[in-house]
Amino acid sequence: MERLRDVDEAALLARVLPAYDRVRPRHADVLVGPGDDAAVVAAPGGSVVATTDGMVRGQDWRDEWSSGHDVGVKVAVSNVADVAAMGAVPTGLLVSLVADPDLPVAWAVDLAAGIADVAAECGAPVLGGDVSSGPPGVVSVTITALGALPGPPVLRSGARAGDVVAVCGTLGRSGGGLAVLLEDLPRTGPAAGLVADHLAPRTPWRSGPVAAAAGAHALVDVSDGLVTDAGRVARASGVAVDLDGDALRAHHAAGPLTEVLGAGRAIEQVLAGGEEHSLVGCFPAATDLVALAGEPWVAVGRVVPAGPDGVVTVDGVVPDVRGWDHFGAG
Amino acid sequence: MERLRDVDEAALLARVLPAYDRVRPRHADVLVGPGDDAAVVAAPGGSVVATTDGMVRGQDWRDEWSSGHDVGVKVAVSNVADVAAMGAVPTGLLVSLVADPDLPVAWAVDLAAGIADVAAECGAPVLGGDVSSGPPGVVSVTITALGALPGPPVLRSGARAGDVVAVCGTLGRSGGGLAVLLEDLPRTGPAAGLVADHLAPRTPWRSGPVAAAAGAHALVDVSDGLVTDAGRVARASGVAVDLDGDALRAHHAAGPLTEVLGAGRAIEQVLAGGEEHSLVGCFPAATDLVALAGEPWVAVGRVVPAGPDGVVTVDGVVPDVRGWDHFGAG
Repeated sequence: MERLRDVDEAALLARVLPAYDRVRPRHADVLVGPGDDAAVVAAPGGSVVATTDGMVRGQDWRDEWSSGHDVGVKVAVSNVADVAAMGAVPTGLLVSLVADPDLPVAWAVDLAAGIADVAAECGAPVLGGDVSSGPPGVVSVTITALGALPGPPVLRSGARAGDVVAVCGTLGRSGGGLAVLLEDLPRTGPAAGLVADHLAPRTPWRSGPVAAAAGAHALVDVSDGLVTDAGRVARASGVAVDLDGDALRAHHAAGPLTEVLGAGRAIEQVLAGGEEHSLVGCFPAATDLVALAGEPWVAVGRVVPAGPDGVVTVDGVVPDVRGWDHFGAG
Repeated sequence: MERLRDVDEAALLARVLPAYDRVRPRHADVLVGPGDDAAVVAAPGGSVVATTDGMVRGQDWRDEWSSGHDVGVKVAVSNVADVAAMGAVPTGLLVSLVADPDLPVAWAVDLAAGIADVAAECGAPVLGGDVSSGPPGVVSVTITALGALPGPPVLRSGARAGDVVAVCGTLGRSGGGLAVLLEDLPRTGPAAGLVADHLAPRTPWRSGPVAAAAGAHALVDVSDGLVTDAGRVARASGVAVDLDGDALRAHHAAGPLTEVLGAGRAIEQVLAGGEEHSLVGCFPAATDLVALAGEPWVAVGRVVPAGPDGVVTVDGVVPDVRGWDHFGAG
């Protein structure tokens, strides 16, 4: 099998870059693409949105579960979701790979294909990147996503008491899929779908600008779990969020999640499951969510004044769940 | 000693972010800084320059030689130099750290201080970042730099036969410093300066936009060695570069490099030493290099028509040197 150590950097790039060539920009002109010292992309509106997120083999994925393509999708989606959560559209990606020279070239090519699939769907070309040799066993992929704002950015800090909290996209499916893998449950029927969503999540990125245009006061994507990410909005905004348990059960926990994990664990995943990359918006109470373009938004709670009961409650009660922390001992 | 595993992500960021708070933007407004889903920075001129470059412990630095501060400077400088080599000014950085939870918190804080020093000197604030847990022993730092173009970008592909090739900044000092370290030569006198420049290089970033304004046809920074990087310009432009051995000896090899390594090895480092991050420009022959603002440019060669003797020659002869390749077996 051909490995990175068998090809020089130019030969590796010659294998990887064709995957990116098919991505056509949709929201901004690429004035200089990969291959020079840096890329140049148009910044419509005179500003640029920028975010970076990386993943590491063994920590963020396992090779026995994830293909290179899955990893490419997952890292790209987590970045695109962060752009969308500002109310912006993605305009370009930069990709950095640190890899053991023992890594098969085919894996790197598959990674690029996964990134390119997300890039193509968003119309956000790969503008550049970097490859570095890493220690034995190490593979790390870091992406930076750039975006353009059709209007003012939607921050985490703008939620106001009285806002309706709504979710665009699924909840708990990625976490449920991880549970299926970790517990070696049968990967058939609805469980297969959960696993697929864990390995290669998607994000309703178009709904970020839709929410912004609808006047959303605050917007975040579900990276570390609904309670954790809604808590970030609540803290940044100086408010609290009260989630509606019935709505979450009916719209998110019911169906495949409950079939696979049972009702109790399904709602836990809805509240605490990470890497879902759905969008959570806080909208003025009068917003007609049904009228919003694109994927549906489902009301799942209310913004309430900050109180003694913690920043996020479910039906008024602090839930016994925790999200993900990158260095915490457990 | 306090290690990353002893603090949660929020506590780590609370320790690291103050280093970045002192950086004031000079070239573009930061509309949204770190802490939200993504940052937003003004993009003067309606476009944004973007590049990414990473370094890995053991591969790109050794802890017995480099402090966290050194690593921060080195990774930041390599990115800033790529922005400058487009003729642009840096406007912001994004920082991604993948680290063994055993890493001392103090090292991560020192890393941030080094990045912040470069950011402050450029007026390019740290806009955001990401931290991920890595396998035992692994520390990897990836930075993305954004920039703004005062005029059209200066590409690698614009060099024309007849252009004068000029260098702004030093050559061979970083490579010379690496030789001192690898061969355990005494780190005193001029050798100490070479080592300092290897561990924490600097780049004459302001001279990138200066060269652009002066009408430079092509521009690149010295990442992998003068011959390698000039060769990239030559290939992209469909020309060849003939370097002037006397000029390189007089202006770059003479002095500390020759004192430490001798004349023969000094010129080798001038031709092939990487990680210098000086700028190489191809200017119209009539350009008055002495009149350029800021740091001096020294003519070191000519762009000539592509010929049979290879893309880069020294006094008409193909030099017997090689630059750096990230995966080649050596």
